[in-house]
Amino acid sequence: MDEPWYSSISDDLEKVERLMMDTVRSRNPELTEICRYVLGTNGKRIRPSICLLSYRACGGRSPGKARDAAAALEIIHNATLIHDDINDQGELRRGAQAAYKKYSIGKSIVAGDFLFALGYRLIGSSSPEVVDFIVDASVAMGAGEFDQKEFERNIEVTEDDYIKIIEGKTARLMECGAKIGSFLAGADDKMIGGMGEFAFRTGIAFQIVDDVLDVIGSESITGKRTGSDIMEGKPTLPMIYAMQDPVHGDELKEIFGKKELGWPEVADAIEMIKKTDSTKRCMEKAKRIAEDSRPLLDVIEDSVYKRSLIDLSDYIVSRNR
Amino acid sequence: MDEPWYSSISDDLEKVERLMMDTVRSRNPELTEICRYVLGTNGKRIRPSICLLSYRACGGRSPGKARDAAAALEIIHNATLIHDDINDQGELRRGAQAAYKKYSIGKSIVAGDFLFALGYRLIGSSSPEVVDFIVDASVAMGAGEFDQKEFERNIEVTEDDYIKIIEGKTARLMECGAKIGSFLAGADDKMIGGMGEFAFRTGIAFQIVDDVLDVIGSESITGKRTGSDIMEGKPTLPMIYAMQDPVHGDELKEIFGKKELGWPEVADAIEMIKKTDSTKRCMEKAKRIAEDSRPLLDVIEDSVYKRSLIDLSDYIVSRNR
Repeated sequence: MDEPWYSSISDDLEKVERLMMDTVRSRNPELTEICRYVLGTNGKRIRPSICLLSYRACGGRSPGKARDAAAALEIIHNATLIHDDINDQGELRRGAQAAYKKYSIGKSIVAGDFLFALGYRLIGSSSPEVVDFIVDASVAMGAGEFDQKEFERNIEVTEDDYIKIIEGKTARLMECGAKIGSFLAGADDKMIGGMGEFAFRTGIAFQIVDDVLDVIGSESITGKRTGSDIMEGKPTLPMIYAMQDPVHGDELKEIFGKKELGWPEVADAIEMIKKTDSTKRCMEKAKRIAEDSRPLLDVIEDSVYKRSLIDLSDYIVSRNR
Repeated sequence: MDEPWYSSISDDLEKVERLMMDTVRSRNPELTEICRYVLGTNGKRIRPSICLLSYRACGGRSPGKARDAAAALEIIHNATLIHDDINDQGELRRGAQAAYKKYSIGKSIVAGDFLFALGYRLIGSSSPEVVDFIVDASVAMGAGEFDQKEFERNIEVTEDDYIKIIEGKTARLMECGAKIGSFLAGADDKMIGGMGEFAFRTGIAFQIVDDVLDVIGSESITGKRTGSDIMEGKPTLPMIYAMQDPVHGDELKEIFGKKELGWPEVADAIEMIKKTDSTKRCMEKAKRIAEDSRPLLDVIEDSVYKRSLIDLSDYIVSRNR
């Protein structure tokens, strides 16, 4: 791990890694193997980092519970990834074979459920507030996935619909990480609110960039097949903007609205999107959201951890994976 | 609802029904619909009943939190049913079309995850002990499902393997219901332990009878296709005992070990199992477990609720659905 914000919390992050691998040990060796396979694949650990940095930035000095929560967030996030891949029939995840491809759909459904339970167990001994933060985020993720399905291959999808979808799907769990971290550090409501809102907006920016990378990213770096979102008919901002293009918009609408697509058509769509100003507009929007969220950090004093939160936010809108 | 133990807690059970239906309301109408569809199908409400009866039998008089926990148990149980049906390709559940058949696999996976989160949310505001009880049971369910998969179509499966499987798959959540109920009523550790053990054994007996009903039950009453377990290659006690039969054992082993089965073969297997003493032995075992568990209730004083727990235990080993 060598991203710029890691250094200030490298010790905490290493302990979180070990904690995750210990947590998923079960009496069934194959269940343990699947969980470790999924958790072990090269994730960016954004959610644990937000939680730990928020904890440290708010002055926390005994990070035991924050580490538990950080591990829980990553475990729950990975549970959703396992289930998402089944849903989306995604074959690659972080450059490795998706769990359901390697171990079967049935085992992957149960492994996901098992990870959810382990995540909740890790934070169950925390205060009711912490449990509330995380279950609220989990509930929002479910609703977000359904909102997304509603707009699959639906050319009427608007930017507002998209933002609503990614709020539930991505931003709420990021917000939750910051809220838990600052709450555990003893922050007051105003500080928790500010930190949460910063992470929430960071999550929105993160997802926009993720969706841009599906169009312009390099498969060998993102670890996912380029154009997967288009193949799956997912409503994304790059597609929404590109469908507004005066030259290519109509043809893209036709592709996006199709029930069945082949990879050659997906490649055509990518080429067309690249000819519009869509990905540029998306990146500008993501960068603006990230920049506009910085003043929210005024609720906390300057520190190496606050600096790392800004680094993380910078990374999110400049990354290539 | 007219089972013998309902009367003493009918008011609580009705409130739990309403609580469940309210809990699953979400901003996405289809998500709400799926959850209500699953929860609304004619379940026996065994887990909420055990929780509420344990609470009342241990002297609890303000059942608000016990009702929350009862609803959470049923919601989590239904989450596992949705996912199990996808896994097992079961087409009918409680006489109705399985959710994944009616609404798609993808939506059902997310709806299950959503129900898990809602279940945890309902008990999240309870004490850490209660959260621990329920997440431990959820973790055990995951391991139980994996243990089961390990022995699918495996003719080497023993009675001990089977008991280990159903402990995780079924008995732990029942135990959890009794432990939460008695804990919330202020019971001491000895009482909680006794109530939990009673419910645990009741769960073992319950699952044995469930597996017998897969062989001898009537489809119109159980609401599931007879022989589904055989079709899916599930290790069950009726099959384990029948495979020991000197006359039909070898032929049953051959069928149980087959990778692909057709319904005519399943029907043959059912006829063969019926010719052995297997289901009789299973029912005797279930009844013995239920009877032997009664003295565990000596930890609590006599009451209408204790009587209902015994009624429930009687029902479980004499039911036809």
